Amino acid sequence: VIAPLVGVLGGMGPAATSDFYATLIRRTPAIRDQDHLRVVIWADPSVPDRVGAVLDGSSDPYPAMLAGARALCGLGVTIAAMPCHTAHVFLPRLIADTGLEFVDMVRETARVLGGRPNSGPVGLLATRGTLRSGLYQRRLGAVGLATVTPDEDTQRQVDRAIASVKSAQLAEARQAVECAVCRLAEAGAHSVVLACTELPVVLRGPTAPHPSALGPTAPHPSALELPSVIDPTELLADAVIRRYRAAR
Amino acid sequence: VIAPLVGVLGGMGPAATSDFYATLIRRTPAIRDQDHLRVVIWADPSVPDRVGAVLDGSSDPYPAMLAGARALCGLGVTIAAMPCHTAHVFLPRLIADTGLEFVDMVRETARVLGGRPNSGPVGLLATRGTLRSGLYQRRLGAVGLATVTPDEDTQRQVDRAIASVKSAQLAEARQAVECAVCRLAEAGAHSVVLACTELPVVLRGPTAPHPSALGPTAPHPSALELPSVIDPTELLADAVIRRYRAAR
Repeated sequence: VIAPLVGVLGGMGPAATSDFYATLIRRTPAIRDQDHLRVVIWADPSVPDRVGAVLDGSSDPYPAMLAGARALCGLGVTIAAMPCHTAHVFLPRLIADTGLEFVDMVRETARVLGGRPNSGPVGLLATRGTLRSGLYQRRLGAVGLATVTPDEDTQRQVDRAIASVKSAQLAEARQAVECAVCRLAEAGAHSVVLACTELPVVLRGPTAPHPSALGPTAPHPSALELPSVIDPTELLADAVIRRYRAAR
Repeated sequence: VIAPLVGVLGGMGPAATSDFYATLIRRTPAIRDQDHLRVVIWADPSVPDRVGAVLDGSSDPYPAMLAGARALCGLGVTIAAMPCHTAHVFLPRLIADTGLEFVDMVRETARVLGGRPNSGPVGLLATRGTLRSGLYQRRLGAVGLATVTPDEDTQRQVDRAIASVKSAQLAEARQAVECAVCRLAEAGAHSVVLACTELPVVLRGPTAPHPSALGPTAPHPSALELPSVIDPTELLADAVIRRYRAAR
């Protein structure tokens, strides 16, 4: 049996990668160092813009992503994770080119939501690239769930919230994300997926409660019941931990 | 010019490594992903106990550390960091065996403290291994600073606080660390070094203010002026960022 080694293809962006690693540690049952997972993180934030690549082909992140995946391969990684939703557009190609066993975060989120009663319609907070790619719409559609996406005004707020994580300005971002969750609820969402790994960072921010605690504290102007907020970063971490323990 | 690549020899322990990476990101001036540092993190928490190795030779972490450092070497790392003070006992051997350009966290902390007016005597909160090794006592002595170490009762609290980070039980640990800072102040320390990378994690914990904000909020039974708390994790991050920017 080869000792498992988790490989993280990260840096897209760095704060999201750091948040994924912290989540992996927090959710691993452990009382000493040696109970934790062996992890190697390739965090190259110089990877060209993923969103532009999907929207209009104005950039090509793939060669840099492939170089990172090959570095992980060379280190003997047995379970791989990529905490960036937009980059999942390139996942099939990356798997084909490297043979790395990636846990697919979009598939995992759809699997979990598909197994819950009353999950849909599902609101999507994501980059324009992720939304345009249809990745979530297809995966959720396959488990019988309809999706709700933000109107242009709300999407602009989501874009700004994502950018604010990359420049470490979290204070304003939190209100924007909470507001976007409410808008999607008004548009019929029963649950909302934080389908960009920068978004859970906003809600976990320095003084923020855990995302799962969002419901009761978020401001909501109407009498709507607030949707449950789904954090794919946690679902990805849990799936990696399960696979690691199964392989050991 | 080779593009710089930061290598982190981590996992000792995982939460400290995650905290170092988060600190590196937080302290890098950036408005977009591409402004951040290229980083690769080797986080192997299965490295045998460093403290036992120093205290009585009951474990040998060196082969696992060397394997990690060689993995970083093979990836083209140009600047290396190891966010574990006790492991710094092995740093000269690691540098000799790999040629990696490590930023020495103990040396960096001594340099910064040596340049400040009224830094000493310097209190040390660390593992028993770090204290026994004399690493800090020698480096600080070389810049003319005396050191103060905890009494047995306080050291037991420090040991427990460090262990609590490794098992993600932060609530009690905070009070223990604050209490230990006070004890060292009573024993004459003007400043206190958090000379174990798990300790800043305690003070940065979920609801905790930043370590630098500790002073005014820490409970102190006497009328003593509280010492300034020095966080070598931040000093290591700042030194890595400076070297990276100089190399680019």
